[in-house]
Amino acid sequence: MTLAPERATLPSPDAANPAVSLSCRHCGATYPLSATHVCVECFAPLEIAYDEDRLRKVTRASIEAGPSNLWRYVGLLPAGHVAERRVSLDAGWTPLRPAQRLAAELGMRTLWVKDDSANPTHSFKDRVVSVALTAARELGFHTVACASTGNLAQSVAAHAASAGLRSVVLVPHDLEAGKTVSTAVYGGTLVAIKGNYDDVNRLCSELAGEYEWAFVNVNVRPFYAEGSKTLGYEVAEQLGWRIPGQVVVPIASGSLLTKVDKAFGELGRLGLVEPTPYKVFGAQAAGCNPVAAAYARGADTVAPVKPSTIAKSLSIGNPADGPYALDVARRTGGAITDVTDDEIVDGIRLLARTEGIFGETAGGVTVACLRRLLNEGLLDPDVETVIYNTGDGLKTLDPLVSTGGPTATIPPSLSAFEAAGLGDD
Amino acid sequence: MTLAPERATLPSPDAANPAVSLSCRHCGATYPLSATHVCVECFAPLEIAYDEDRLRKVTRASIEAGPSNLWRYVGLLPAGHVAERRVSLDAGWTPLRPAQRLAAELGMRTLWVKDDSANPTHSFKDRVVSVALTAARELGFHTVACASTGNLAQSVAAHAASAGLRSVVLVPHDLEAGKTVSTAVYGGTLVAIKGNYDDVNRLCSELAGEYEWAFVNVNVRPFYAEGSKTLGYEVAEQLGWRIPGQVVVPIASGSLLTKVDKAFGELGRLGLVEPTPYKVFGAQAAGCNPVAAAYARGADTVAPVKPSTIAKSLSIGNPADGPYALDVARRTGGAITDVTDDEIVDGIRLLARTEGIFGETAGGVTVACLRRLLNEGLLDPDVETVIYNTGDGLKTLDPLVSTGGPTATIPPSLSAFEAAGLGDD
Repeated sequence: MTLAPERATLPSPDAANPAVSLSCRHCGATYPLSATHVCVECFAPLEIAYDEDRLRKVTRASIEAGPSNLWRYVGLLPAGHVAERRVSLDAGWTPLRPAQRLAAELGMRTLWVKDDSANPTHSFKDRVVSVALTAARELGFHTVACASTGNLAQSVAAHAASAGLRSVVLVPHDLEAGKTVSTAVYGGTLVAIKGNYDDVNRLCSELAGEYEWAFVNVNVRPFYAEGSKTLGYEVAEQLGWRIPGQVVVPIASGSLLTKVDKAFGELGRLGLVEPTPYKVFGAQAAGCNPVAAAYARGADTVAPVKPSTIAKSLSIGNPADGPYALDVARRTGGAITDVTDDEIVDGIRLLARTEGIFGETAGGVTVACLRRLLNEGLLDPDVETVIYNTGDGLKTLDPLVSTGGPTATIPPSLSAFEAAGLGDD
Repeated sequence: MTLAPERATLPSPDAANPAVSLSCRHCGATYPLSATHVCVECFAPLEIAYDEDRLRKVTRASIEAGPSNLWRYVGLLPAGHVAERRVSLDAGWTPLRPAQRLAAELGMRTLWVKDDSANPTHSFKDRVVSVALTAARELGFHTVACASTGNLAQSVAAHAASAGLRSVVLVPHDLEAGKTVSTAVYGGTLVAIKGNYDDVNRLCSELAGEYEWAFVNVNVRPFYAEGSKTLGYEVAEQLGWRIPGQVVVPIASGSLLTKVDKAFGELGRLGLVEPTPYKVFGAQAAGCNPVAAAYARGADTVAPVKPSTIAKSLSIGNPADGPYALDVARRTGGAITDVTDDEIVDGIRLLARTEGIFGETAGGVTVACLRRLLNEGLLDPDVETVIYNTGDGLKTLDPLVSTGGPTATIPPSLSAFEAAGLGDD
């Protein structure tokens, strides 16, 4: 038996949970913590509202005493306050790597790569899914669902399997076989929809009205999105409780970028770090650049585009948090830019060649945008910078196949090896 | 300029390094710590010899104060004693996951999965490569090389790139495009050899005689192999400094299994754990089962086979450490078994469905062998057991493609969804 979303609220006032309600990002109307995401007054998105006094109970020491995963920040999150009830595959606490060789190649002083490919299903989606499914279980749901073209699908299926929850994942029918396989293997319900991602998404919204399931990026989205804050907290903690002067974040829906900014703001406000200034830069593919285009136009609104880029995990043509991302970039003194598919492939190779990190196409977007921002003088090479690699290259091999062959193909003999000039330089 | 392997020895007696020499596993002849792997007296393999007093300086506290990667065990390793000179992408300190749902399905009391897919290039090879390349750099090499069919290739290319070392990786020319891409992306020299893996390996040995390069699985193999000990140390530490009663380890060359046993033995001897008894079980694919077959025959020697299995990362027909693995299984009261390709696919699915862990084919071998050992009464379901998942399923998608499709394919409508019986159970 599942609880209807409108009746499912968190069991009882939980003193350990700093989240107290949902509030409308536009009109400020408040709602109980429940599986709902849109304001009935003005139709704007809802977000989690916290009790400031409860947030202030969190200290550096309490965080450092926590587990080596995102749940070390549970005191700043809206779910998971009973450890045994968390849905967790140990997402988070991924490496922040010093990128000296990449910095040298780009003429930068101090550069770090926050490498979220180290998550259990190898993308940052594991963070948001872990928080969303934990909230879903606390709210009494037994089935979790989502629409996805890849990373989210695998993460939801994996986390649901580990927790014994039923999963229903909807994907476009023409997905690459590899992405289908890496989701189907977990044994949940995987539904291929004869249509494109927009069709899948629309059907998902319809289903959310029919079934009493937790839709991770629909009715439990306010919980889900908060998981991204941990990508801000971790960077600050890993730098020794400091906020970097510049960060470059890829933009799909725009949620991740806004949550990194929110995290830095919270840490400063709560006295966990010195509230030093920072600039947030956004990275998009030229083939799906609605936020970068709005930034370039000086517009406050984002005009939808039809995506056509190899960076499929960033292919959201009508990004829900686009206007908020614009606001963050402008308010902090950052910028939002975009790069071509050829530049994305170059970015993937540059990161791999200099740092031994094989990023997803989204990682290639970020590295290539970093280079472009430097070339355009928008990003200061002498200010400490962190870039986010949000997924693993093994998930997006296709764009590299045509150009990623061996140095040489030879018969199995020493003389052939030497004749091909493969010996010492 | 590189140093000739026979002249390259570790710079000076280093009091922090517990390794003091290489010694022959057969006749006991000793050699200086250098890039050599075969005894000139009797042609048996060499291994690292340690100063027992130096090993005894290692304490639980000194380990626990170390980094969250394999280098926390540097006091028990033959290289890497100057942190700044390590070649490291943070391999190791991977999760030991409680596998309650898998245990319940198999009727076991306490089961853990040591999940080495969490390593930087998503296989346990990152451990041995990090140690091998660190030793190579300490020995003065500037070029590192290997023969591989996949996991080792990616790991060597990635680690070399991060350290600015030149890499030369040799692979069979008919490797899957995905494996070529995920190695070539790091920008090293990747040579496709027109021949099978045996041809590649033979050429690699010839090259080792010609070039002053560190061949990770040839002339620096004694250092390389020691990296696998960390898979034993970590399990014991993660259990709260205890040795589990039973472990199941996949067998390719047999080196990993023998090093896990060596690690447990060292920890007990050095007083870091109670030296409690344990049984070591080996897992092979029926299509490449030379060690399991020798075990079944009661033989001390291993007859080579021609591999034919989907478990490519375990496809070594003539395993160098096969006899040593046999010895460990027999001495500890374990066993070695094998499973068919169909059972391997079932094993992959079982692990994913119950625990949300998507293992490589090698992981499927281990899970399927666990089930077989239970069915045959060789492994006790009531004794605490650890199984090793040595790689990530994203690396071996092919065997799942034919059987890993969606639950249903439907048009984008609510009525189609309901008609397909996809709603609530």
